[in-house]
Amino acid sequence: MSRYDEYFLMKVEDVPGYVEEKLPGFFPEAATPECREIGDGNLNYVFRLVDPQSGKSIVIKQAGEAARISEDIVISTDRGRIEAKILGLQGAVAPGLVPKVYLYDEVMCAMVMEDMTGHTMMRTGLMQYQMYPDFAEHITTFLVNTLLLTTDVVMNHKEKKELVKDFINPDLCEITEDLVYSEPYIDYNHRNNVFLPNAEFIKAELYEDKVLHLEAAKLKFQFMNNAQALIHGDLHTGSIFINKEHTFVFDPEFAFYGPMGYDVGNIIANMFFAWCHGDATIKDPAARREFCDWTLLTIEQIVDMFIEKFRRLYAQRATDTMARVEGFLDYYLGTILEDTAGVTGLELIRRTDGLANVKDITTIEDSEKRVRAERIVVTFAKNCIMNRSQFRSGQDYRQAIAVAVEKFS
Amino acid sequence: MSRYDEYFLMKVEDVPGYVEEKLPGFFPEAATPECREIGDGNLNYVFRLVDPQSGKSIVIKQAGEAARISEDIVISTDRGRIEAKILGLQGAVAPGLVPKVYLYDEVMCAMVMEDMTGHTMMRTGLMQYQMYPDFAEHITTFLVNTLLLTTDVVMNHKEKKELVKDFINPDLCEITEDLVYSEPYIDYNHRNNVFLPNAEFIKAELYEDKVLHLEAAKLKFQFMNNAQALIHGDLHTGSIFINKEHTFVFDPEFAFYGPMGYDVGNIIANMFFAWCHGDATIKDPAARREFCDWTLLTIEQIVDMFIEKFRRLYAQRATDTMARVEGFLDYYLGTILEDTAGVTGLELIRRTDGLANVKDITTIEDSEKRVRAERIVVTFAKNCIMNRSQFRSGQDYRQAIAVAVEKFS
Repeated sequence: MSRYDEYFLMKVEDVPGYVEEKLPGFFPEAATPECREIGDGNLNYVFRLVDPQSGKSIVIKQAGEAARISEDIVISTDRGRIEAKILGLQGAVAPGLVPKVYLYDEVMCAMVMEDMTGHTMMRTGLMQYQMYPDFAEHITTFLVNTLLLTTDVVMNHKEKKELVKDFINPDLCEITEDLVYSEPYIDYNHRNNVFLPNAEFIKAELYEDKVLHLEAAKLKFQFMNNAQALIHGDLHTGSIFINKEHTFVFDPEFAFYGPMGYDVGNIIANMFFAWCHGDATIKDPAARREFCDWTLLTIEQIVDMFIEKFRRLYAQRATDTMARVEGFLDYYLGTILEDTAGVTGLELIRRTDGLANVKDITTIEDSEKRVRAERIVVTFAKNCIMNRSQFRSGQDYRQAIAVAVEKFS
Repeated sequence: MSRYDEYFLMKVEDVPGYVEEKLPGFFPEAATPECREIGDGNLNYVFRLVDPQSGKSIVIKQAGEAARISEDIVISTDRGRIEAKILGLQGAVAPGLVPKVYLYDEVMCAMVMEDMTGHTMMRTGLMQYQMYPDFAEHITTFLVNTLLLTTDVVMNHKEKKELVKDFINPDLCEITEDLVYSEPYIDYNHRNNVFLPNAEFIKAELYEDKVLHLEAAKLKFQFMNNAQALIHGDLHTGSIFINKEHTFVFDPEFAFYGPMGYDVGNIIANMFFAWCHGDATIKDPAARREFCDWTLLTIEQIVDMFIEKFRRLYAQRATDTMARVEGFLDYYLGTILEDTAGVTGLELIRRTDGLANVKDITTIEDSEKRVRAERIVVTFAKNCIMNRSQFRSGQDYRQAIAVAVEKFS
């Protein structure tokens, strides 16, 4: 019998004993680790346990009681299970790039995980003009390993199908289907947040462009039906915790089997928002140039390193007989790059004119500069969507960005 | 308490009492229905219960005891559940075109269903040169209704995803992935059954044609990843029970969420095998022409009626916002027709040169005629695969068949 055989909501003073029982030996024998509640305690309660002498620390995330008794929270509890499971899977194929999960406790609805101390949410860092020179290297390893290694190119097909089943994610996919793939084009729910001085521009460029709607529709069905790889599903710079040396990818609650390009395109789009923010808000020309150049270089490197690492890992690890026939890798990678460009465009548009806009854009105080930034975003985005089969290298993205920027200079 | 609360293997004398308890009122009050065991009693035992006075009859299919205690049979029992569930779903959207399921009893592992008396297995009928003038009409209604109405074009997206989960079918998909999409091109399991006089021809046309391998590989990943509609998954003429007036589709154990073209292509390919058998074995020229013309007309009608009914039902029933944008129906139907042609070719090849050949071909006794039939099949099939985007109407299939036949005349 243990006092943790039945659920109760832990307080700060309960956590050290919990960790001692559940993870004996994590802290040195004589340690008396200190516990502090962190996070905003909305649905989840997050604690950090630190042993000042050894410097070791750990994080405990528990689903709150309120969460457990209301109807919504059956979902929330299951999200905890899914989150722990996917972090385990991602950690196995991309070690060091997601926080380690030491334990998921179904009774206490608690996950004990690696402390990401010393890391900042990437969007916050980027908005302070921080540059992360190794980010492209880290994120492309994460992308290629978590994506390619969960496909039926590499995995046993039966095991892959069991994962598809485990990660069917109707609630969170619906959010994406509405917010990314429908509302920004056909504002049927009237939830779009359009910056008023751009209202006419958006009406003409998004709501009235029927050819664009058709391409968005094609990409929507691709998102809903293509069970290609176990994707993160929400890989923007708010899901990344980073410092100069290291990158953690987190918050995988949108994960399901979908098209790889969704993850790659999300990263590229959100890196471009960092460019927009830097370009509009850094006053010193040299500093502005340095930061903006770094964002563009990073976009270029993400695309090119993704391609290079994908080819290398595919050659090493592809097992499916037909995946090894001549020309298939080129074809397969080509479809992924096409999806990537399409999603880059969709994410850029929905984060500028949909329900959930990014701070990189909304915090640009100078109205004229915000108008310009948004028009650049939409112009580049539409190019990505409409000509997605032509985005085959980092250079292609740089050129498309240059064309959009030129148009509004 | 009922004697059916615990599993036992029913004998002929048990069945009337079982049906009386489980389906009271199915037979008239005073009826004394007669029971007979039908089917080959391999894993399943099949009984037919007939009341000679009212003419009413019913079929009971029970999973055998041996099946229940060996390890394999967990699968078999679950197949019974899946079979009952999908027949229910298909019956709801295509009433009258699948046998009705009156009851599925998880304890007794028994399904009570409509008697398909008066129907013949279609392949058997076709090999006796029977013609079914309404078949194209019936099967296209079945195809369009069961396929389109289970997509996220029409269904609530969350409900559709739950169905995807319910019908993940790893074991039976693996059979298709190997037998249809891999082995006929790369004989790595050495299970292909190639007619010896055609061995060199097959080596050159299938094993050494690397461009063909690439197209087969593309279609394989399409089959594995595209969760488009709840497909039957094995819709050849051995899964159809038919007479001049009526058609039943049965044996849906391969069902899962896959590309619609898989079902449509299977039907077309197997109708062409009927042409091959008639062409090679009917001695009387007028009779031969009549039967073969009917098979070609049926292929043409299947394609054209599928397109027409699909467009009509889509216009009535599409609910997804983006599925209703201008041009999307044309695009979507285009991808389905492309898959259809690809699968027509793959099914033709695998049923001629793979592990599971069709009787329509293997019973052609005259070696020279069989050699010719198989070469026509492979030539037409490769055209379907390699030029699949150009097969857009029934006429396109007729022309491609004519070209292949001409080549070996």
